[in-house]
Amino acid sequence: MPHVVIIGGGFGGLYAARAFRRQPVDVTIVDRRNHHVFQPLLYQVAMAALSPGDIASPIRWILRRQQNVEVLLGEVERIDPPRRSIHLCDGDEIPYDFLIVAAGATHAYFGHDDWMQYAPGLKTLENGLEIRRRVLLAFERAEREKDAAQRQALLTFAIVGGGPTGVELAGALAEIARKSLVRDFRHIDPASARILLIEAGTSVLATFPEPLRRAAARDLERLGVEVRTGTIVTRIAPGLVEAGPWQLRAETILWAAGVAASPLGATLGAPIDRAGRVLVNPDLTIPGHPEVFVIGDLASLAGADGRPLPGVAQVAMQMGAHAARNIGRAIEGQPLRPFRYRDYGNMATIGRASAVADLHWAQLKGFPGWLAWLFIHLIKLIGFRNRIVVLIQWAWAYFSYQRAIRLIAGGDGRPQ
Amino acid sequence: MPHVVIIGGGFGGLYAARAFRRQPVDVTIVDRRNHHVFQPLLYQVAMAALSPGDIASPIRWILRRQQNVEVLLGEVERIDPPRRSIHLCDGDEIPYDFLIVAAGATHAYFGHDDWMQYAPGLKTLENGLEIRRRVLLAFERAEREKDAAQRQALLTFAIVGGGPTGVELAGALAEIARKSLVRDFRHIDPASARILLIEAGTSVLATFPEPLRRAAARDLERLGVEVRTGTIVTRIAPGLVEAGPWQLRAETILWAAGVAASPLGATLGAPIDRAGRVLVNPDLTIPGHPEVFVIGDLASLAGADGRPLPGVAQVAMQMGAHAARNIGRAIEGQPLRPFRYRDYGNMATIGRASAVADLHWAQLKGFPGWLAWLFIHLIKLIGFRNRIVVLIQWAWAYFSYQRAIRLIAGGDGRPQ
Repeated sequence: MPHVVIIGGGFGGLYAARAFRRQPVDVTIVDRRNHHVFQPLLYQVAMAALSPGDIASPIRWILRRQQNVEVLLGEVERIDPPRRSIHLCDGDEIPYDFLIVAAGATHAYFGHDDWMQYAPGLKTLENGLEIRRRVLLAFERAEREKDAAQRQALLTFAIVGGGPTGVELAGALAEIARKSLVRDFRHIDPASARILLIEAGTSVLATFPEPLRRAAARDLERLGVEVRTGTIVTRIAPGLVEAGPWQLRAETILWAAGVAASPLGATLGAPIDRAGRVLVNPDLTIPGHPEVFVIGDLASLAGADGRPLPGVAQVAMQMGAHAARNIGRAIEGQPLRPFRYRDYGNMATIGRASAVADLHWAQLKGFPGWLAWLFIHLIKLIGFRNRIVVLIQWAWAYFSYQRAIRLIAGGDGRPQ
Repeated sequence: MPHVVIIGGGFGGLYAARAFRRQPVDVTIVDRRNHHVFQPLLYQVAMAALSPGDIASPIRWILRRQQNVEVLLGEVERIDPPRRSIHLCDGDEIPYDFLIVAAGATHAYFGHDDWMQYAPGLKTLENGLEIRRRVLLAFERAEREKDAAQRQALLTFAIVGGGPTGVELAGALAEIARKSLVRDFRHIDPASARILLIEAGTSVLATFPEPLRRAAARDLERLGVEVRTGTIVTRIAPGLVEAGPWQLRAETILWAAGVAASPLGATLGAPIDRAGRVLVNPDLTIPGHPEVFVIGDLASLAGADGRPLPGVAQVAMQMGAHAARNIGRAIEGQPLRPFRYRDYGNMATIGRASAVADLHWAQLKGFPGWLAWLFIHLIKLIGFRNRIVVLIQWAWAYFSYQRAIRLIAGGDGRPQ
């Protein structure tokens, strides 16, 4: 039987693997982590509302019933299209008949990779726990700080990037400071914390329609988030954000501003764009290699409107299923079909009971938007156990304003 | 108001802090971690059945309503009884009128500290996640291993120490291998894993009555755990356990054999025993310092039967409350009272639906023992949210045999 190798167990890779359920192929899915992460809720792990186990499941477990799939834990070093094989970092070589590359993207610091250590981004569970650690430790350190200026810097949080992730982080952070932590400290008032959302463009949530953008900005300000648009960050140093002449002392800086495609794309030998994404054919293959498909955040493809498709879960899922169907067609000797994206809409949540949802046929904001957000995320969470547990965690957090999972761990778990 | 400093937010420190609820004192509780861990369930985190957030809560949050308590995140370097102050590692000095030292214990490797890296113990959340990582990675590596002998070593798990922790780890590990992982792999049969419980003494659970010891050994063997009593480990090296001439190749070795008291005890200037525990007066103070109390695993005190009190949560909790009451008496000028331990019994669980419980007035084993274990641990879990979530996790794990929280993280979360 033909052997299909899938690189990456994110939304794209997982949906591709599932689409092979009844096809006569052997599938190997390789990921350097053992788990799939439900990325849209990762900010809730960072903000101590959910546990890693609530939003992530072992890839092996998700696919356990699909007998034609094997899951390998391993890191891919490079792809060798002429030999039709991939090379793992530990030296193993895995041959393939068809390849689906769904290796995703990571943070981009626009040429300032040294900013990464001062301003972590949010892509993996480890990122989420690291952000949680920094945020909670900032309050702990402020509680013990005697110098007023330094205490204020510890209670200042800067989030760079006003897309959905930045908006969600800022909203959740404002609620932690103003509501959840209010009784916990004796020497500081967590509610006095400053939370700044810094965006280079003219508005937060630039991809949303104008009325929803305005609603989101208003909801953020009601939560006490200072939204600074038109502010291009020029320097990040320990405890410092600069945008031209503007300076801000902030001990906690979070990065939600840019993504760069996985470096694996460049090993394919196909043309890539500035962000490292592979320019794919309309059928998702790469030029000269009809057996190699690139999908998700790693692929660059124009939509029906001529603009590049966005790097969101919906695109990755649909591309994954499409690539799998195209491989089925290739095996049967039929022509491949071009990919068409069906856009069901965009959502972002702002704190506890407010969200914006652009469903194209309707625009929701405030509490109705939040209910739509809750419903859609809950039914999409993979695994029965997670859904009930997450629902209870949310209900508890909603009615009590408490975030009980405020554990500082990682490193050796001690204050530095 | 008199200032009471408590070192440590474990069972002893927390119960002491709570006992000051209505007393006219200012309390400062110092811990180097921000969370209290419900130790009796830590093995469930190690065995991927519970998330860290299910069994741990921020100390600050637990005590948020008690206005006379402040919580400090900090590591204590030494205690200075003549100056009546403690010194933190970051240079701060905190004076006290009364001090309760509840710094607990860590693993003891009987002079072989180099064994620690090969055979981690289970005391902290980080330990639990590290053990989980090693166990799950062993199966992942076995799935990809081509050499039969090395594959067998990867599928061999040695647990050193047959006390409650060792028994619980062995039972849970056997169930993971035989039940939870059964469908997940394509090249190995997880059910073929060997699990060995190595005990130096003549029996597992030496502190339990004879019938319960026998029941536990029988239940372990029914789960496929090989119990080796009378086996004194003489060497641990990477992938290797030796006991005299006996050798075992095991890539995963866990340590549940011994504890050593916190080194803070030695800075008090009071007499200590071989394990580093402070020999306290019957009223829990140390000789010459009626304002300094030592409690929990760090204290050495004989019980009514003349034997030293065991290092269990019940002793620490009762000592914490007693020390607090004695401080109240000292403030009122009344004589201190000696501590008397009320022993409500011991329990250990062996896998999914079996446990032994020695309640003194009754001995339970098998399923009734397990129900007693479940009930007592559930009502003792601190925090309403945790209880419901943990109950659902358990119900799910019980009926499905699944452990969905099988996430490998830590380090950079990648295979090495």
